[in-house]
Amino acid sequence: MNFCSHCGEQVVHKIPDGDNRHRYVCTVCDFIHYQNPRIIAGCIAEYENKILLCKRAIEPRHGLWTLPAGFMENQETTLEAAKRETFEEANAKIINSQLFCSISIPHISQVYIMYRGDLVDGFSKPGIESLETELYSEDQIPWDNLAFPVITESLQLYFSDKNNGGFSIYNGEMRRDKNSKMVTEIYPQL
Amino acid sequence: MNFCSHCGEQVVHKIPDGDNRHRYVCTVCDFIHYQNPRIIAGCIAEYENKILLCKRAIEPRHGLWTLPAGFMENQETTLEAAKRETFEEANAKIINSQLFCSISIPHISQVYIMYRGDLVDGFSKPGIESLETELYSEDQIPWDNLAFPVITESLQLYFSDKNNGGFSIYNGEMRRDKNSKMVTEIYPQL
Repeated sequence: MNFCSHCGEQVVHKIPDGDNRHRYVCTVCDFIHYQNPRIIAGCIAEYENKILLCKRAIEPRHGLWTLPAGFMENQETTLEAAKRETFEEANAKIINSQLFCSISIPHISQVYIMYRGDLVDGFSKPGIESLETELYSEDQIPWDNLAFPVITESLQLYFSDKNNGGFSIYNGEMRRDKNSKMVTEIYPQL
Repeated sequence: MNFCSHCGEQVVHKIPDGDNRHRYVCTVCDFIHYQNPRIIAGCIAEYENKILLCKRAIEPRHGLWTLPAGFMENQETTLEAAKRETFEEANAKIINSQLFCSISIPHISQVYIMYRGDLVDGFSKPGIESLETELYSEDQIPWDNLAFPVITESLQLYFSDKNNGGFSIYNGEMRRDKNSKMVTEIYPQL
Protein backbone atom coordinates (compact mmCIF):
# COMPACT_ATOMS: atom_id res chain seq x y z
CA MET A 1 0.00 0.00 0.00
CA ASN A 2 1.44 3.33 -1.14
CA PHE A 3 -1.51 5.69 -1.40
CA CYS A 4 -4.67 6.48 0.56
CA SER A 5 -7.69 4.92 -1.14
CA HIS A 6 -9.87 7.75 0.20
CA CYS A 7 -7.93 10.89 -0.77
CA GLY A 8 -5.15 9.58 -3.04
CA GLU A 9 -2.29 11.03 -0.99
CA GLN A 10 0.67 9.08 0.35
CA VAL A 11 0.41 6.73 3.34
CA VAL A 12 3.06 5.95 5.92
CA HIS A 13 3.47 2.71 7.87
CA LYS A 14 3.37 3.63 11.54
CA ILE A 15 1.75 2.84 14.87
CA PRO A 16 -1.23 5.19 15.27
CA ASP A 17 -1.83 6.90 18.62
CA GLY A 18 -3.53 4.52 21.01
CA ASP A 19 -2.70 1.48 18.89
CA ASN A 20 0.06 -1.10 19.24
CA ARG A 21 0.46 -2.26 15.65
CA HIS A 22 1.81 -0.75 12.48
CA ARG A 23 -0.91 0.45 10.11
CA TYR A 24 -0.95 2.31 6.85
CA VAL A 25 -2.03 5.85 7.78
CA CYS A 26 -2.70 8.69 5.33
CA THR A 27 -0.29 11.60 5.67
CA VAL A 28 -3.04 14.06 4.68
CA CYS A 29 -6.47 12.83 5.82
CA ASP A 30 -5.14 10.62 8.67
CA PHE A 31 -7.34 7.70 7.61
CA ILE A 32 -6.11 4.44 9.10
CA HIS A 33 -6.18 1.54 6.62
CA TYR A 34 -6.69 -1.61 8.66
CA GLN A 35 -5.79 -4.92 7.06
CA ASN A 36 -7.36 -8.13 8.27
CA PRO A 37 -7.22 -11.87 7.57
CA ARG A 38 -9.31 -13.36 4.80
CA ILE A 39 -11.60 -16.36 5.03
CA ILE A 40 -11.36 -19.21 2.56
CA ALA A 41 -14.52 -21.30 2.63
CA GLY A 42 -14.93 -24.70 1.03
CA CYS A 43 -16.56 -28.11 1.04
CA ILE A 44 -15.68 -31.73 1.57
CA ALA A 45 -18.43 -33.17 -0.64
CA GLU A 46 -18.98 -36.92 -0.39
CA TYR A 47 -20.84 -39.30 -2.66
CA GLU A 48 -20.77 -43.08 -2.22
CA ASN A 49 -17.66 -42.93 -0.04
CA LYS A 50 -15.83 -40.74 -2.53
CA ILE A 51 -14.78 -37.11 -2.18
CA LEU A 52 -15.00 -34.42 -4.82
CA LEU A 53 -11.66 -32.94 -5.84
CA CYS A 54 -10.85 -30.30 -8.44
CA LYS A 55 -7.70 -30.03 -10.53
CA ARG A 56 -6.66 -26.39 -10.49
CA ALA A 57 -6.75 -24.47 -13.77
CA ILE A 58 -5.32 -21.36 -12.09
CA GLU A 59 -2.23 -20.33 -10.21
CA PRO A 60 -1.02 -20.91 -7.62
CA ARG A 61 -0.59 -24.69 -7.87
CA HIS A 62 -1.95 -25.00 -11.40
CA GLY A 63 -2.54 -28.68 -12.20
CA LEU A 64 -2.65 -29.84 -8.59
CA TRP A 65 -5.75 -31.18 -6.84
CA THR A 66 -7.79 -29.38 -4.21
CA LEU A 67 -11.09 -29.32 -2.41
CA PRO A 68 -13.46 -26.74 -3.85
CA ALA A 69 -12.79 -23.60 -1.80
CA GLY A 70 -12.12 -19.92 -2.24
CA PHE A 71 -12.20 -16.45 -0.79
CA MET A 72 -15.41 -15.52 0.98
CA GLU A 73 -17.06 -12.45 -0.54
CA ASN A 74 -18.71 -9.52 1.20
CA GLN A 75 -22.45 -9.89 1.86
CA GLU A 76 -22.44 -13.67 2.12
CA THR A 77 -22.24 -16.25 4.90
CA THR A 78 -19.42 -18.75 5.31
CA LEU A 79 -21.72 -21.55 4.21
CA GLU A 80 -22.95 -19.59 1.19
CA ALA A 81 -19.32 -18.95 0.26
CA ALA A 82 -18.46 -22.65 0.57
CA LYS A 83 -21.44 -23.64 -1.59
CA ARG A 84 -20.77 -20.91 -4.15
CA GLU A 85 -17.16 -21.98 -4.56
CA THR A 86 -18.21 -25.61 -4.90
CA PHE A 87 -20.62 -24.64 -7.64
CA GLU A 88 -18.21 -22.28 -9.39
CA GLU A 89 -15.32 -24.74 -9.40
CA ALA A 90 -17.20 -27.98 -9.93
CA ASN A 91 -20.83 -27.19 -10.83
CA ALA A 92 -21.61 -29.27 -7.77
CA LYS A 93 -24.14 -28.89 -4.99
CA ILE A 94 -24.01 -30.15 -1.44
CA ILE A 95 -26.75 -30.86 1.06
CA ASN A 96 -26.72 -31.85 4.73
CA SER A 97 -23.79 -29.52 5.25
CA GLN A 98 -22.11 -29.33 8.64
CA LEU A 99 -19.17 -27.31 9.85
CA PHE A 100 -16.06 -29.49 9.79
CA CYS A 101 -12.99 -27.40 10.54
CA SER A 102 -11.66 -23.91 11.12
CA ILE A 103 -7.93 -23.72 10.47
CA SER A 104 -5.97 -20.50 10.82
CA ILE A 105 -2.83 -20.02 8.73
CA PRO A 106 -1.36 -16.96 10.42
CA HIS A 107 1.78 -16.50 8.29
CA ILE A 108 -0.44 -15.81 5.29
CA SER A 109 -3.33 -14.27 7.28
CA GLN A 110 -5.92 -16.77 6.11
CA VAL A 111 -8.61 -18.75 7.91
CA TYR A 112 -9.97 -21.85 6.21
CA ILE A 113 -13.55 -22.74 7.13
CA MET A 114 -14.50 -26.09 5.65
CA TYR A 115 -17.89 -27.78 5.61
CA ARG A 116 -18.66 -31.42 4.94
CA GLY A 117 -21.79 -32.59 3.17
CA ASP A 118 -23.36 -34.87 0.62
CA LEU A 119 -22.68 -34.23 -3.06
CA VAL A 120 -26.06 -34.09 -4.81
CA ASP A 121 -26.44 -36.89 -7.40
CA GLY A 122 -22.67 -37.35 -7.38
CA PHE A 123 -22.60 -34.77 -10.13
CA SER A 124 -19.69 -32.49 -10.98
CA LYS A 125 -18.29 -30.81 -14.07
CA PRO A 126 -15.26 -28.52 -14.22
CA GLY A 127 -15.93 -24.81 -13.80
CA ILE A 128 -13.65 -22.19 -15.33
CA GLU A 129 -11.11 -22.48 -12.50
CA SER A 130 -10.82 -26.27 -12.79
CA LEU A 131 -9.18 -28.50 -15.40
CA GLU A 132 -10.97 -31.63 -14.12
CA THR A 133 -13.26 -32.69 -11.32
CA GLU A 134 -13.22 -36.20 -9.94
CA LEU A 135 -14.61 -38.34 -7.15
CA TYR A 136 -11.92 -40.17 -5.22
CA SER A 137 -12.08 -42.78 -2.49
CA GLU A 138 -9.51 -42.49 0.30
CA ASP A 139 -7.03 -44.81 -1.39
CA GLN A 140 -7.46 -43.07 -4.73
CA ILE A 141 -6.83 -39.52 -3.45
CA PRO A 142 -3.76 -38.10 -5.23
CA TRP A 143 -2.06 -37.45 -1.89
CA ASP A 144 1.24 -36.45 -3.54
CA ASN A 145 -0.44 -33.99 -5.86
CA LEU A 146 -2.63 -31.97 -3.51
CA ALA A 147 -2.38 -28.21 -3.91
CA PHE A 148 -2.05 -27.01 -0.30
CA PRO A 149 -1.03 -28.52 3.06
CA VAL A 150 -4.35 -27.38 4.59
CA ILE A 151 -6.20 -29.48 2.01
CA THR A 152 -4.14 -32.56 2.86
CA GLU A 153 -4.76 -31.95 6.55
CA SER A 154 -8.51 -31.47 6.10
CA LEU A 155 -8.81 -34.69 4.09
CA GLN A 156 -6.75 -36.67 6.59
CA LEU A 157 -8.93 -35.48 9.47
CA TYR A 158 -12.04 -36.27 7.45
CA PHE A 159 -11.07 -39.84 6.57
CA SER A 160 -9.75 -40.50 10.06
CA ASP A 161 -13.11 -39.49 11.54
CA LYS A 162 -15.04 -41.34 8.85
CA ASN A 163 -13.10 -44.54 9.49
CA ASN A 164 -13.70 -44.15 13.22
CA GLY A 165 -17.41 -43.90 12.70
CA GLY A 166 -18.14 -40.28 13.63
CA PHE A 167 -17.19 -36.72 12.87
CA SER A 168 -15.74 -34.11 15.18
CA ILE A 169 -15.40 -30.40 14.51
CA TYR A 170 -11.81 -29.22 14.39
CA ASN A 171 -10.15 -25.96 15.26
CA GLY A 172 -6.51 -25.07 15.04
CA GLU A 173 -3.65 -23.67 13.07
CA MET A 174 -0.95 -24.45 10.56
CA ARG A 175 2.04 -22.14 10.60
CA ARG A 176 5.59 -22.09 9.29
CA ASP A 177 8.23 -22.07 12.00
CA LYS A 178 11.60 -20.28 11.76
CA ASN A 179 12.98 -23.06 9.58
CA SER A 180 9.99 -22.87 7.20
CA LYS A 181 8.72 -26.20 8.51
CA MET A 182 4.92 -26.40 8.70
CA VAL A 183 3.75 -26.88 12.29
CA THR A 184 0.20 -28.16 12.63
CA GLU A 185 -1.87 -27.93 15.79
CA ILE A 186 -5.45 -28.90 15.20
CA TYR A 187 -7.73 -30.32 17.86
CA PRO A 188 -11.21 -31.80 17.96
CA GLN A 189 -13.58 -29.44 19.76
CA LEU A 190 -16.19 -30.68 22.24
CA MET B 1 -12.70 3.72 -2.17
CA ASN B 2 -11.75 6.49 -4.59
CA PHE B 3 -8.08 5.95 -5.39
CA CYS B 4 -5.76 3.03 -6.10
CA SER B 5 -3.67 2.23 -3.04
CA HIS B 6 -0.86 1.02 -5.30
CA CYS B 7 -0.43 3.86 -7.81
CA GLY B 8 -2.64 6.64 -6.40
CA GLU B 9 -4.77 7.06 -9.53
CA GLN B 10 -8.57 6.89 -9.66
CA VAL B 11 -10.51 3.64 -9.37
CA VAL B 12 -13.82 2.73 -10.97
CA HIS B 13 -16.44 0.33 -9.64
CA LYS B 14 -16.99 -2.29 -12.34
CA ILE B 15 -17.15 -5.98 -13.03
CA PRO B 16 -13.67 -7.06 -14.17
CA ASP B 17 -13.31 -9.42 -17.14
CA GLY B 18 -13.93 -13.00 -16.07
CA ASP B 19 -15.54 -11.93 -12.81
CA ASN B 20 -19.21 -11.64 -11.81
CA ARG B 21 -19.04 -9.02 -9.06
CA HIS B 22 -18.37 -5.32 -8.92
CA ARG B 23 -14.84 -4.49 -7.74
CA TYR B 24 -12.83 -1.32 -7.42
CA VAL B 25 -10.41 -1.42 -10.35
CA CYS B 26 -7.62 1.10 -11.03
CA THR B 27 -8.11 3.09 -14.24
CA VAL B 28 -4.33 3.26 -14.77
CA CYS B 29 -2.60 0.15 -13.39
CA ASP B 30 -5.69 -2.13 -13.61
CA PHE B 31 -5.15 -3.44 -10.09
CA ILE B 32 -8.30 -5.08 -8.71
CA HIS B 33 -9.00 -4.17 -5.09
CA TYR B 34 -10.88 -7.10 -3.58
CA GLN B 35 -12.84 -6.50 -0.39
CA ASN B 36 -13.65 -9.35 1.95
CA PRO B 37 -15.52 -10.00 5.20
CA ARG B 38 -13.78 -9.46 8.50
CA ILE B 39 -13.61 -11.86 11.42
CA ILE B 40 -14.54 -10.77 14.92
CA ALA B 41 -13.14 -13.20 17.48
CA GLY B 42 -14.11 -13.32 21.13
CA CYS B 43 -14.62 -15.35 24.28
CA ILE B 44 -17.37 -16.53 26.54
CA ALA B 45 -15.30 -16.75 29.71
CA GLU B 46 -16.89 -18.50 32.66
CA TYR B 47 -15.97 -18.50 36.34
CA GLU B 48 -18.13 -20.11 39.02
CA ASN B 49 -21.20 -20.12 36.76
CA LYS B 50 -20.74 -16.48 35.86
CA ILE B 51 -19.78 -14.95 32.51
CA LEU B 52 -17.38 -12.10 31.93
CA LEU B 53 -18.94 -9.05 30.29
CA CYS B 54 -17.40 -5.69 29.41
CA LYS B 55 -19.14 -2.32 29.38
CA ARG B 56 -18.05 -0.58 26.20
CA ALA B 57 -15.98 2.61 26.52
CA ILE B 58 -15.98 3.11 22.73
CA GLU B 59 -18.48 3.60 19.95
CA PRO B 60 -20.54 2.01 18.62
CA ARG B 61 -22.79 1.16 21.57
CA HIS B 62 -20.79 3.08 24.16
CA GLY B 63 -22.02 2.17 27.65
CA LEU B 64 -23.64 -1.12 26.63
CA TRP B 65 -22.41 -4.55 27.67
CA THR B 66 -20.65 -7.06 25.45
CA LEU B 67 -18.56 -10.19 25.42
CA PRO B 68 -14.88 -9.43 24.93
CA ALA B 69 -14.37 -9.62 21.16
CA GLY B 70 -12.83 -7.67 18.34
CA PHE B 71 -11.40 -7.66 14.84
CA MET B 72 -8.91 -10.41 14.14
CA GLU B 73 -5.52 -9.05 13.07
CA ASN B 74 -3.21 -10.28 10.35
CA GLN B 75 -0.63 -12.89 11.41
CA GLU B 76 -2.70 -14.35 14.21
CA THR B 77 -5.05 -17.30 14.66
CA THR B 78 -8.73 -16.99 15.51
CA LEU B 79 -8.05 -18.29 19.02
CA GLU B 80 -5.12 -15.92 19.50
CA ALA B 81 -7.38 -13.08 18.40
CA ALA B 82 -10.09 -14.12 20.85
CA LYS B 83 -7.61 -14.33 23.72
CA ARG B 84 -5.91 -11.07 22.77
CA GLU B 85 -9.22 -9.22 22.73
CA THR B 86 -10.19 -10.72 26.07
CA PHE B 87 -6.93 -9.53 27.54
CA GLU B 88 -7.07 -6.08 25.93
CA GLU B 89 -10.64 -5.40 26.97
CA ALA B 90 -10.71 -7.07 30.38
CA ASN B 91 -7.13 -8.01 31.33
CA ALA B 92 -8.55 -11.52 31.53
CA LYS B 93 -7.17 -14.89 30.48
CA ILE B 94 -9.03 -18.02 29.50
CA ILE B 95 -7.99 -21.65 29.53
CA ASN B 96 -9.65 -24.84 28.28
CA SER B 97 -10.91 -22.91 25.28
CA GLN B 98 -13.18 -24.61 22.77
CA LEU B 99 -14.82 -23.32 19.63
CA PHE B 100 -18.43 -22.39 20.40
CA CYS B 101 -19.99 -20.64 17.43
CA SER B 102 -19.39 -19.21 14.01
CA ILE B 103 -22.05 -16.67 13.07
CA SER B 104 -22.03 -14.81 9.76
CA ILE B 105 -23.63 -11.38 9.57
CA PRO B 106 -23.71 -10.88 5.81
CA HIS B 107 -25.30 -7.43 5.66
CA ILE B 108 -22.26 -6.01 7.44
CA SER B 109 -19.77 -8.55 6.04
CA GLN B 110 -18.66 -9.84 9.41
CA VAL B 111 -18.13 -13.33 10.80
CA TYR B 112 -18.15 -13.78 14.56
CA ILE B 113 -16.05 -16.68 15.85
CA MET B 114 -16.59 -17.17 19.55
CA TYR B 115 -14.79 -19.51 21.93
CA ARG B 116 -15.89 -20.61 25.37
CA GLY B 117 -13.47 -21.27 28.21
CA ASP B 118 -12.65 -20.89 31.86
CA LEU B 119 -11.73 -17.45 33.16
CA VAL B 120 -8.44 -17.80 35.03
CA ASP B 121 -8.83 -16.94 38.74
CA GLY B 122 -12.07 -15.14 37.95
CA PHE B 123 -9.92 -12.07 37.40
CA SER B 124 -10.78 -9.11 35.20
CA LYS B 125 -10.07 -5.39 35.15
CA PRO B 126 -11.22 -2.90 32.51
CA GLY B 127 -8.85 -2.32 29.61
CA ILE B 128 -8.82 0.95 27.69
CA GLU B 129 -11.86 0.00 25.61
CA SER B 130 -13.99 -0.92 28.64
CA LEU B 131 -15.66 1.20 31.29
CA GLU B 132 -16.27 -1.77 33.57
CA THR B 133 -15.87 -5.53 33.59
CA GLU B 134 -18.18 -7.77 35.55
CA LEU B 135 -19.04 -11.42 36.12
CA TYR B 136 -22.74 -12.14 35.67
CA SER B 137 -24.81 -15.23 36.26
CA GLU B 138 -27.55 -15.97 33.73
CA ASP B 139 -30.22 -14.12 35.70
CA GLN B 140 -27.94 -11.15 36.31
CA ILE B 141 -26.98 -10.61 32.66
CA PRO B 142 -28.12 -7.12 31.58
CA TRP B 143 -30.14 -8.61 28.73
CA ASP B 144 -31.73 -5.26 27.84
CA ASN B 145 -28.40 -3.50 27.70
CA LEU B 146 -26.32 -5.79 25.51
CA ALA B 147 -24.44 -4.06 22.70
CA PHE B 148 -25.16 -6.31 19.71
CA PRO B 149 -27.79 -8.90 18.75
CA VAL B 150 -25.03 -11.46 18.04
CA ILE B 151 -23.87 -11.13 21.64
CA THR B 152 -27.38 -11.75 22.95
CA GLU B 153 -27.69 -14.77 20.66
CA SER B 154 -24.32 -16.22 21.68
CA LEU B 155 -25.16 -15.89 25.37
CA GLN B 156 -28.61 -17.43 24.91
CA LEU B 157 -27.13 -20.43 23.09
CA TYR B 158 -24.47 -20.75 25.76
CA PHE B 159 -26.83 -20.76 28.71
CA SER B 160 -29.28 -23.03 26.93
CA ASP B 161 -26.54 -25.59 26.36
CA LYS B 162 -25.16 -25.14 29.86
CA ASN B 163 -28.58 -25.70 31.40
CA ASN B 164 -29.05 -28.79 29.25
CA GLY B 165 -25.80 -30.25 30.49
CA GLY B 166 -23.62 -30.12 27.39
CA PHE B 167 -22.26 -27.83 24.73
CA SER B 168 -22.73 -27.98 20.98
CA ILE B 169 -20.87 -26.03 18.35
CA TYR B 170 -23.06 -23.64 16.40
CA ASN B 171 -22.93 -22.34 12.87
CA GLY B 172 -25.28 -19.95 11.19
CA GLU B 173 -26.22 -16.45 10.30
CA MET B 174 -28.01 -13.33 11.44
CA ARG B 175 -29.17 -11.00 8.71
CA ARG B 176 -31.55 -8.11 8.28
CA ASP B 177 -34.46 -8.81 5.98
CA LYS B 178 -36.12 -6.26 3.67
CA ASN B 179 -38.03 -4.80 6.62
CA SER B 180 -34.85 -4.44 8.67
CA LYS B 181 -35.97 -7.25 10.94
CA MET B 182 -33.13 -9.46 12.16
CA VAL B 183 -33.54 -13.03 10.95
CA THR B 184 -31.50 -15.60 12.86
CA GLU B 185 -30.70 -19.08 11.58
CA ILE B 186 -28.19 -20.82 13.77
CA TYR B 187 -27.93 -24.58 14.12
CA PRO B 188 -25.97 -26.97 16.29
CA GLN B 189 -23.42 -28.85 14.19
CA LEU B 190 -22.73 -32.57 14.58
